[in-house]
Amino acid sequence: RRKVNVDASAVDKGGYRHFMAKEIAEQSSVLAAAVKFYLSGREGQTMLENDLDFTNIDRVVMVACGTASLACFTAKYWFEQIAGVPVEIDIASEFRYREPPISDRTLAIFVSQSGETADTLAALRYCAGKAGKIVSVVNVAESSIARESDVVLPILAGPEIGVASTKAFTCQLVVLAAMALQAARQRKVLPAEALSKLEDQLLQMPGLMADVMTCEGQVKAISQQLARFKDAIFLGRGAMYPLALEGALKLKEISYIHAEGYASGELKHGPIALIDDDMPVVVIAPHDEMFDKTVSNMQEVMARGGKIVMLSDAKGLAEAGGETWQQIEVPQIEGPFAPIAYAVPIQLLAYHTAVEKGTDVDQPRNLAKSVTVE
Amino acid sequence: RRKVNVDASAVDKGGYRHFMAKEIAEQSSVLAAAVKFYLSGREGQTMLENDLDFTNIDRVVMVACGTASLACFTAKYWFEQIAGVPVEIDIASEFRYREPPISDRTLAIFVSQSGETADTLAALRYCAGKAGKIVSVVNVAESSIARESDVVLPILAGPEIGVASTKAFTCQLVVLAAMALQAARQRKVLPAEALSKLEDQLLQMPGLMADVMTCEGQVKAISQQLARFKDAIFLGRGAMYPLALEGALKLKEISYIHAEGYASGELKHGPIALIDDDMPVVVIAPHDEMFDKTVSNMQEVMARGGKIVMLSDAKGLAEAGGETWQQIEVPQIEGPFAPIAYAVPIQLLAYHTAVEKGTDVDQPRNLAKSVTVE
Repeated sequence: RRKVNVDASAVDKGGYRHFMAKEIAEQSSVLAAAVKFYLSGREGQTMLENDLDFTNIDRVVMVACGTASLACFTAKYWFEQIAGVPVEIDIASEFRYREPPISDRTLAIFVSQSGETADTLAALRYCAGKAGKIVSVVNVAESSIARESDVVLPILAGPEIGVASTKAFTCQLVVLAAMALQAARQRKVLPAEALSKLEDQLLQMPGLMADVMTCEGQVKAISQQLARFKDAIFLGRGAMYPLALEGALKLKEISYIHAEGYASGELKHGPIALIDDDMPVVVIAPHDEMFDKTVSNMQEVMARGGKIVMLSDAKGLAEAGGETWQQIEVPQIEGPFAPIAYAVPIQLLAYHTAVEKGTDVDQPRNLAKSVTVE
Repeated sequence: RRKVNVDASAVDKGGYRHFMAKEIAEQSSVLAAAVKFYLSGREGQTMLENDLDFTNIDRVVMVACGTASLACFTAKYWFEQIAGVPVEIDIASEFRYREPPISDRTLAIFVSQSGETADTLAALRYCAGKAGKIVSVVNVAESSIARESDVVLPILAGPEIGVASTKAFTCQLVVLAAMALQAARQRKVLPAEALSKLEDQLLQMPGLMADVMTCEGQVKAISQQLARFKDAIFLGRGAMYPLALEGALKLKEISYIHAEGYASGELKHGPIALIDDDMPVVVIAPHDEMFDKTVSNMQEVMARGGKIVMLSDAKGLAEAGGETWQQIEVPQIEGPFAPIAYAVPIQLLAYHTAVEKGTDVDQPRNLAKSVTVE
């Protein structure tokens, strides 16, 4: 085992009851550093410009496990919509054994907080020599995954102690978002104006992360209700679908509630049979171009007696929140990177529900921070 | 609404208590017709040979909803491993709105039992004019999806009355398997001998479906136990991973148990926190090249007090079934198409659990057979 020397202040709880609470709260400042590094800092931007060439590839493959794989899933929407690059995502334990076709016109990205995730490392080794370039997005820059990559993009999250990933997830999203913007720039698929608007939206994200924290009171009150249930469903559409999966995963990991994430539009193809009084449904529904579709799926749930926790902005809640069981209000957030800010209420919901249930938040049962076995 | 004239015998229960039981039991004979049509019948084979050219494409995109999307997910493993063609799968409600890049070197496949699934039809229309060819795999050959396709491949399942799909799922698998074999043949990626062995394995599938039915007694006894639980997890690796998802979906749909499917290797990245005495885990573990890995994941669950229902063959159960809570034995099945036969115990488990719970098996709450709204 390698010894890592870190500033003592980074590994104490800084007045918070749990590391996880501290790591959720510090996302605004941590993300500010990451955004600055990749968008306006010299080093990060040079790295993206010089080390990554998105003009000579046909597709991107992204591989990871757990929460990191949901960061990849979110980024798939960004790469495809912003840069027009087809992206294949997979979880590492499947990817490595299904032996997918990989050509030298594939850019392969591996995401791991620790950089030691065994399945992800094995997937990387499968791609080495086949893919045009191996890129890793890691928190630990001296890790095995980083050492075996052509390009290493640090997420700059600082030490993450809570087993359930929070700030590492949102920092992974920032790095992947910066890459998607870089791909769009190099491939010249967007007018300069549109690109610069997207850049601004990403630059504003750290500030928005602080604003979003104001929902904590609401979330805490709802968590006291949620803690009484044994099951839950999370719904989202588009880039909010991976976030629904992440919301469910977080709740599973630390509160032991059996939460499951679904694409809003898929619910009626089976899982809606589960809906009853004992199955609260968290709907991630920002007032964006998908809003009406998501609300229509939400109303299908309500028509069957489902209890809805609606997570939206003032406009969304005013339009459709009236009949819902609970509401969480966050500021209005424009553009494709909204899932970064929406991660905060999702994390807070899991955190406060676990605290209410009295589980061991930072060290949940059965879980290890870094999974170095297959 | 179109009127469909069918033979009366096809739409009565034929002595079974539910249509679903009948439709599970008749899979052997129904599949025999489908396999014959596509592998040794003149018409189906000509269709595959003349209407589908896998040599001039870069990738396959498959889009569907619900159970049909899990047939696509299974086929992704086949196309990639047997024919070396990259496959992207997506659920229709996500695919149509994320506007993925589609080129004329993309073959797009749409799978729908009814051929009227609204989201799948919309996804097809998104691809029309962009993809090189639009192929549909449907049960109703005069449906909207069929009418708007370049090539229509009927699954020949006959009328499926039970809302939870069973024989349509396995027939979809047969058609997709035949297509994967055709792709391998055209692209010349396999020696003739290997290809003919795979063909034999698919030809044997209908017979194996009948043999597998012998596990029904075991499954029924286990279902009486399973009916007492409110939650369950299904695990599988490789092409058995989509089947784990399908097993969970089937149980959700008709027994209202909150079952969730996971890739075996992904469990330790979060969901293993859920494991306790109230969370039975169904492990699909044929004695194949993935067996040791799957068993190792299974043992992680057992070490945390999880109750295992192990679904395997005699060899697998002899090696690793000893300490498990329950066992289901099926015949040994060679080759990549094993998920087709393993679908039977998965369906029977959902069916008998629902019967034990006294739910409305053929018309589960909140669900429609054909989802013609978004």
